Amino acid sequence: MVESIATKDMLGRSGLTPVDQAVQILMDQLNTIVPESETVSLDLALDRILGEPVISPEDLPAAARSTMDGYAVRAADTFGASQTMPCYLNITGEVIMGEEPVGEVEKGCCHKIPTGGLLPHGANSVVMFEHTVPVDDTMIEIVKGIGEGTNLIQRGEDISRNAEALPAGHLLRPQDIGLLAGLGIAEVSVFKKVSVGIVSTGDEIVPYGDNPLPGQIRNINSITLAGMIKRAGGLCVDYGIVSDKFDIFFPALEKAVQENDIVLFSGGSSVGVRDLGEQAVEALGPPGIFIHGVALKPGKPILMGLSKTTPVFGLPGHPVSALVCFDLFVLPAILKLSGIKNKVELPPATLSARLSRNINSAPGRRDLVRVKLQYDNDTWTADPIMGKSGSISTLSRAHGYFTIEEDSQGVSEGTNVKVFFYQ
Amino acid sequence: MVESIATKDMLGRSGLTPVDQAVQILMDQLNTIVPESETVSLDLALDRILGEPVISPEDLPAAARSTMDGYAVRAADTFGASQTMPCYLNITGEVIMGEEPVGEVEKGCCHKIPTGGLLPHGANSVVMFEHTVPVDDTMIEIVKGIGEGTNLIQRGEDISRNAEALPAGHLLRPQDIGLLAGLGIAEVSVFKKVSVGIVSTGDEIVPYGDNPLPGQIRNINSITLAGMIKRAGGLCVDYGIVSDKFDIFFPALEKAVQENDIVLFSGGSSVGVRDLGEQAVEALGPPGIFIHGVALKPGKPILMGLSKTTPVFGLPGHPVSALVCFDLFVLPAILKLSGIKNKVELPPATLSARLSRNINSAPGRRDLVRVKLQYDNDTWTADPIMGKSGSISTLSRAHGYFTIEEDSQGVSEGTNVKVFFYQ
Repeated sequence: MVESIATKDMLGRSGLTPVDQAVQILMDQLNTIVPESETVSLDLALDRILGEPVISPEDLPAAARSTMDGYAVRAADTFGASQTMPCYLNITGEVIMGEEPVGEVEKGCCHKIPTGGLLPHGANSVVMFEHTVPVDDTMIEIVKGIGEGTNLIQRGEDISRNAEALPAGHLLRPQDIGLLAGLGIAEVSVFKKVSVGIVSTGDEIVPYGDNPLPGQIRNINSITLAGMIKRAGGLCVDYGIVSDKFDIFFPALEKAVQENDIVLFSGGSSVGVRDLGEQAVEALGPPGIFIHGVALKPGKPILMGLSKTTPVFGLPGHPVSALVCFDLFVLPAILKLSGIKNKVELPPATLSARLSRNINSAPGRRDLVRVKLQYDNDTWTADPIMGKSGSISTLSRAHGYFTIEEDSQGVSEGTNVKVFFYQ
Repeated sequence: MVESIATKDMLGRSGLTPVDQAVQILMDQLNTIVPESETVSLDLALDRILGEPVISPEDLPAAARSTMDGYAVRAADTFGASQTMPCYLNITGEVIMGEEPVGEVEKGCCHKIPTGGLLPHGANSVVMFEHTVPVDDTMIEIVKGIGEGTNLIQRGEDISRNAEALPAGHLLRPQDIGLLAGLGIAEVSVFKKVSVGIVSTGDEIVPYGDNPLPGQIRNINSITLAGMIKRAGGLCVDYGIVSDKFDIFFPALEKAVQENDIVLFSGGSSVGVRDLGEQAVEALGPPGIFIHGVALKPGKPILMGLSKTTPVFGLPGHPVSALVCFDLFVLPAILKLSGIKNKVELPPATLSARLSRNINSAPGRRDLVRVKLQYDNDTWTADPIMGKSGSISTLSRAHGYFTIEEDSQGVSEGTNVKVFFYQ
């Protein structure tokens, strides 16, 4: 395990870990976990992750086809043909879509063929209509000579038998589903969706459909996290709101750990609830807690632990902090456990925008600053949203965020910042 | 309606419309269509589009709360306090999470308060623990003076009663669902999903689960388009494969038009099927066809028409052409009919990459060139994928595409091109 740089919490309670190091430690913990597979029918496979490589069971296409409307010919019959010196071929057949071609294209002859039509025996290329002139019903004039293989897609040209059509770990996009359909593969082995359990705690939290009494607040985090889990391709299991008494909280957490690949708990950010979380994660058994807080704003009080091979995240109670921690730590964990392997990792959508005011930051800490974007006179401007991290409306108003790194004390008005999108 | 620039098709059949103009004509046709609304419960509202603005029914938070663990005080009692000249306050109460505070904070006194706790009467700010030193169980020393309102989130500071929480046409992201939960809104009015009917035609097309006979090919387009429709937030209705005889095809198309907001048909790109499509769309009644082919490669033979207010797209039969046409024309139509209105339109994810070889293009036509991306030595390289448009594997291998505009005859090796991602 990477050794955590000891950074003092303001309460002096424990070391804060820098963000990149926390991600690294987390990823190292998840290295040995192998996701399970299941078989799904192709019409349910969109956006799932392939559990094993798909080897093409056949050549696609199964035989040479025309890519143009025209005439199937022997290329040699057209050699040297031009506008001034056309050649003449007898029409001795016609390829019908969806049917096996009848007869053979003899020397000096041609068969009419539609786009997608199977190349008839004897022919080795297709002259497109635009390069022919009808003489009568039985003969055409060809005004341009062509080489062998012209206007054809050859057998196996799209994909050949026994070639790897798609690798294991590949995210199935619509075009990949299309490729599998083209190969006649009606079901595929995919990794099971990562199941993420959520336990909410805090005696002040009530379901969002209830009318809170004075001092109570509605549960914002569970449904928000559920949406983020769903968008990440995971499966959310909600264990409801449980009391922050250890005897009630711990069994609920333990059940969630037994039943899921990842567990999040979310409660107040008060000292009492943080202590409860630490006790409960340690009581789950080894290896236990490996991150006690991160040098991050918002999101500092996040707790990360492992019960056997199940990662458990204690998210800060403030909605904004909870969602920032989800993006930085829980999302990479879900993706890792999903089995996804991109050959090329495309960069996330970003935009360079001019910062509209000075923003200060404490050195040694990473700040994520939420911004509204505006576009005027060909220029993007990023307006920082200054609300508190308990304020969910600041996230709803934000188009994205930029980052102030640990070695910076702030960013000046007018600086171009790289804004990551909330989509 | 914008007048189409007459560009001759190679068959001399009809004018080809430039891409941007085709999009503009299409969007103009859809201007007057108003989507219908429906009410859904909040847990099903993720990624739906708000049908009407949400006005906050209450202040959030409903009362001032502490944002820190500490002591609720009268700010004036702490004025001038410092490490060398601390002030002393009597602890006369404690705020319990989830409960209404008991009693009042009198002058010279304080109540212990957790993060998220309701501010007790009498107090107007919170001193954080870190700025206090316990004297005994009944008294603390305060080592830093604070102003009124410190470490509080005020009543209505997140969002105030009667303020617009979210505008109509807003896509509900997880954080927006969280905001609605925070306001106790358990169901919302959203626009109905855009329903898109797909009719496949072509006597050579068989369901992908079947074993094709010689001359037959599996239906790739329907399931691929279904995936793209789903990702666009639409609802796909598959009418299966129908014969390309007018008497069978037309009633199927007419039924799909009656039952959906948008209809796609997809078949061969042969002249026969194109003629069938034109006849059928015209037979649906006015206004009829408004685009007969676009100056685009791949995707030229696309047909667009309108039956009353339902757009009908005749997509090219080749999978790659069909998917390119979906992205350029059908997707914007789905988004338009979905009712989505972004205040700020974020640009799509792109990447600048070095082209690995020369690519030629015909002037007057827009080319979309599919590429594989590679990252080496801090540089992205885009390798064009040169397969035919009948080849679905080229789309599956592609990370994205770049565009060669109408006024260009090609792009040279080494040029930096802007690659749009297939995600």
